[in-house]
Amino acid sequence: MPGQVQSIARAAAILRLLAGGSGRLGLLEIARALDLPKGTAHGIVRTLHDVGFVEQDKTSGKYQLGAALLHLGTSYLDVNELRSRSINWADPLAARSGEAVRIGTLLDSKVLVVHHVFRPDDTLQTLDVGALLPPHATALGKVLLAYNARGGLGDLVPYTRRTLASPRVLTRALAAIREAGWGSDIEEMTVGVAGIAAPIRGYGGLVVGAIGISGPVERVCDAHGQPRITLVTHVREAARAVSRDLGGRGQ
Amino acid sequence: MPGQVQSIARAAAILRLLAGGSGRLGLLEIARALDLPKGTAHGIVRTLHDVGFVEQDKTSGKYQLGAALLHLGTSYLDVNELRSRSINWADPLAARSGEAVRIGTLLDSKVLVVHHVFRPDDTLQTLDVGALLPPHATALGKVLLAYNARGGLGDLVPYTRRTLASPRVLTRALAAIREAGWGSDIEEMTVGVAGIAAPIRGYGGLVVGAIGISGPVERVCDAHGQPRITLVTHVREAARAVSRDLGGRGQ
Repeated sequence: MPGQVQSIARAAAILRLLAGGSGRLGLLEIARALDLPKGTAHGIVRTLHDVGFVEQDKTSGKYQLGAALLHLGTSYLDVNELRSRSINWADPLAARSGEAVRIGTLLDSKVLVVHHVFRPDDTLQTLDVGALLPPHATALGKVLLAYNARGGLGDLVPYTRRTLASPRVLTRALAAIREAGWGSDIEEMTVGVAGIAAPIRGYGGLVVGAIGISGPVERVCDAHGQPRITLVTHVREAARAVSRDLGGRGQ
Repeated sequence: MPGQVQSIARAAAILRLLAGGSGRLGLLEIARALDLPKGTAHGIVRTLHDVGFVEQDKTSGKYQLGAALLHLGTSYLDVNELRSRSINWADPLAARSGEAVRIGTLLDSKVLVVHHVFRPDDTLQTLDVGALLPPHATALGKVLLAYNARGGLGDLVPYTRRTLASPRVLTRALAAIREAGWGSDIEEMTVGVAGIAAPIRGYGGLVVGAIGISGPVERVCDAHGQPRITLVTHVREAARAVSRDLGGRGQ
């Protein structure tokens, strides 16, 4: 087995660096952040520029991500089986629940949104596909963590006073999700917003993703502040349907 | 100036290869397509796997694009100035024209869609962001070619009997677009669909993108089969507004 190709690993690190933070960095900033000699960083950045993975701002000379990555990213979506199998079930779930639907998978201890159906009303909504959500503060993320906690719990940033920001409390909540087969977040990331999610199982029964709804807490939860049972049923049915299509067993 | 880093250029070629075609390839297929020794291809693919740029299908052992690219692709959109400056003008254009709006830029002699506003009705539409359109058969593409033909005219595939598939005819059409300041395609890519587009100019007056509408030919064109003047005016006004926001001069 050959080892890692160092320059490719460094190139990937530069792209991740540009994807985080302010989005635009000078050569020296890149070299410093990755502890590389300036000449080495220059060779890598120049090659990334030649292949369209980074662009250089004409005025400032700073580097930013390039257009070729957008096409690669959407090509990933085209081959992503979780997404292609989910699409047919996400639309009916949005229609039945009246809420926005998201499908997510774990990437580097975050929730990567691979599909998003807008809430079926006329409100202005932003497409979340490609966004990374915090796993501990979202129903989707807690479900994914409950079944794949090997990567750790992530960074337990408190978004609201209801965020499960303590490892002990979160670990207990994840055990309850495994017991129930579904999870929720009630104003844990955004005040006034609640979500419900269930695991999607792939071939062999492994949890490969999660599907969930989110919306105003007064619609997602009942008078006792608990997720409405009818909505939980809709979400779990959609998760089971996608799992079946992926060759995973029911839940 | 340092030269290209060969392994990064090869890694990019592998990613492009996976983005085209069927989406999944075995190691031998990759090595053959790029004329690389199997061991060299393996080292590169393995590193791309480690950084999340490719994934391996568990059943077939074949490689496909990885989830990390989706996040990089959408991060590109976040820093893309053409897109961020266009968003505010694309929605009103869709509302005024009643048609779908797309904003595109040239990538490897194709039109990369960086923003897409759905036609304001309830029909089922697929998000085209990240898709590559043929430049010679779309209004967006012809406008981009008219002002940036250095990369060549691309592959003149005839999509319909109205596609401008001859270099001589297309070159004449591009000159007419430069003269008029806008362009159209009338059933040149899809029978029954027409489009109108105008150039977006960035700092210094260079054409950095195009904005356009597309819809049913009977709505986009008048009784004489020509693009409706009111729609042309809406498109050109939107293009001028985005150009102004980008620091480009008017048209």
